[in-house]
Amino acid sequence: MSIDLAAIAASIPGLDLAAMDAARQRQTQLTKPPGSLGRLEDLAIAIAGMTGTERPRFEHAAVVVAAADHGIAARGVSAYPREVTRQMLRNFLAGGAAISALARNAGARVIVADFGVAGEAISHPDLVGARQGEGTHDFLDGPAMLVETALDAIAAGMAIVERERVAGLDVVCTGEMGIGNTTSAAALTAAFTGAPAATVTGHGTGVEGEAFAHKVRVVEDALTRHVEPGTTPIELLARLGGFEIAGLTGVILAAAANRVPVVLDGYITTAAALAAVAIAPGARNYLVASHRSVEPGHRAALTALGLVPLVDLGLRLGEGSGAAIALPVLRGALAAHNEMATFAEAGVSEA
Amino acid sequence: MSIDLAAIAASIPGLDLAAMDAARQRQTQLTKPPGSLGRLEDLAIAIAGMTGTERPRFEHAAVVVAAADHGIAARGVSAYPREVTRQMLRNFLAGGAAISALARNAGARVIVADFGVAGEAISHPDLVGARQGEGTHDFLDGPAMLVETALDAIAAGMAIVERERVAGLDVVCTGEMGIGNTTSAAALTAAFTGAPAATVTGHGTGVEGEAFAHKVRVVEDALTRHVEPGTTPIELLARLGGFEIAGLTGVILAAAANRVPVVLDGYITTAAALAAVAIAPGARNYLVASHRSVEPGHRAALTALGLVPLVDLGLRLGEGSGAAIALPVLRGALAAHNEMATFAEAGVSEA
Repeated sequence: MSIDLAAIAASIPGLDLAAMDAARQRQTQLTKPPGSLGRLEDLAIAIAGMTGTERPRFEHAAVVVAAADHGIAARGVSAYPREVTRQMLRNFLAGGAAISALARNAGARVIVADFGVAGEAISHPDLVGARQGEGTHDFLDGPAMLVETALDAIAAGMAIVERERVAGLDVVCTGEMGIGNTTSAAALTAAFTGAPAATVTGHGTGVEGEAFAHKVRVVEDALTRHVEPGTTPIELLARLGGFEIAGLTGVILAAAANRVPVVLDGYITTAAALAAVAIAPGARNYLVASHRSVEPGHRAALTALGLVPLVDLGLRLGEGSGAAIALPVLRGALAAHNEMATFAEAGVSEA
Repeated sequence: MSIDLAAIAASIPGLDLAAMDAARQRQTQLTKPPGSLGRLEDLAIAIAGMTGTERPRFEHAAVVVAAADHGIAARGVSAYPREVTRQMLRNFLAGGAAISALARNAGARVIVADFGVAGEAISHPDLVGARQGEGTHDFLDGPAMLVETALDAIAAGMAIVERERVAGLDVVCTGEMGIGNTTSAAALTAAFTGAPAATVTGHGTGVEGEAFAHKVRVVEDALTRHVEPGTTPIELLARLGGFEIAGLTGVILAAAANRVPVVLDGYITTAAALAAVAIAPGARNYLVASHRSVEPGHRAALTALGLVPLVDLGLRLGEGSGAAIALPVLRGALAAHNEMATFAEAGVSEA
């Protein structure tokens, strides 16, 4: 599969300013003091701009949970063994994971995609096959993947959104699973934002003490090896990323190209957003940050993207859990925007 | 109606520590790194303690929107005329207010209660009649209401919860409407926390400039007139409160007595919680703070209660809007707690 990143970037529409103006005007007429719903008002107006409609609705929500393994996991950067990626993939398919419960609570479907989990391909009717290999290479030995493979993973992520869009998808939450992927996210965040390794490396699933110091050194070594002036975004993604991160980059690019708002989850999905925005700056307009992760590098990534998360609940699980928690808040913003009576309709006096 | 506050206070059970231990134990077995769901884990454990069950569910949620008018509104402390309370009561009943849309979004019923809106009683099949008069007295001229009236309003609030409890109510969100009631909330917050008038008085629905300075002086004058060493909680509530605030105090007390978690909204409902906890310290255990209001005094009230809100979205509407936004977050915490597979069930390796 061959894709043209410049053409994809060029295909992303700008925000619909007329729809935003209409939504802003509507907000002033609703039966409440102006501005009293705070960020809920801003969200409704922003989503109007993304979707190009004065009164947008989220009726077909999905969480894309992209899973893959990471060569860097062999370096002892995680508290969990690599086989947990595969075990959790089965848990997602069985509906027993946190994201399974949280997506049900939020009224969103879960789309589980295998972008390259170690071992043989799992055969399951609900699993989207998007495998780029049995996990990336160890990026201390060379690039995590070839640029060509990163492009294939992006294309596979885009294809998920394009197929779902036909079925009515109107908001996409991003999620992921991959033992070792906070190390990849840290390297990408440092590479895309310029932040030092020590400030973007966190404790992941529970790496402490010497193992944590080792994780920081792994990120430093990866940056020394792979990042130089002039390295392009797709090269950074290929050298330091994961198959699932590249896949999510594709999910974000295709969503933006189709005017579908993207609800980011935590550190890994925000690293994918950094890649997507580096490739296609216009994708930035379609991003909503759901929560602030415990991972310290998430702050640097959100700041670089100019995003302020909706909640800060001490989450550090991934899977799309924070995005699924925030989705009802977004739906609430749209419910108030769409369903409230105006002062004229309700016969309520204005200030 | 005569009620015995000491007996009510004594009837509130403590948290069920065995249920909390069982819930805490369950959390360690779910397929996620320990602690990785952050405050969602803490919430599930806390709600287990409130409800006395290891795996609590919120299947019958309601928002009690208590409305009443305030004598102090005649002093020009609000940007809106007093008739807006009555107009908004009709808007709630017609389903066109923000809380109407947000409660639908959250899967909660709205119970609208008239605790004393100015003018004739509104006749509507869905309106709970709990009228204590046509608005309180101006508390710069005397007490807002008699202690006996405050007790009646508390009893009426308790009766709402007790009736709904029979129908299965398992979580109650608090909401309110009353032009002038941020002034009452400011006076109560100052009286219960000891914070000065200037730090607890905010802009309400949009009071600015000289009108705002006047509002601060009104609160100061009220405190000078009504608060002295030895003034009891019920006296403070009667002198400075509103019928709807006293009603919500009753809602909170009855919920606590029935092991029903209470989701507070913003400044006014938190002032009711200050009164409830001053009357019955055990009620504190049943409170969940939904959001941090723009009203500056809300911070002092939350701090006094030792509560940390779940979201901070710049809301300042009231009605129960913030509680309705937070309810899906709470349900998400319970969904993950109740529905996730354990490591053993899913065959997932532990750290």
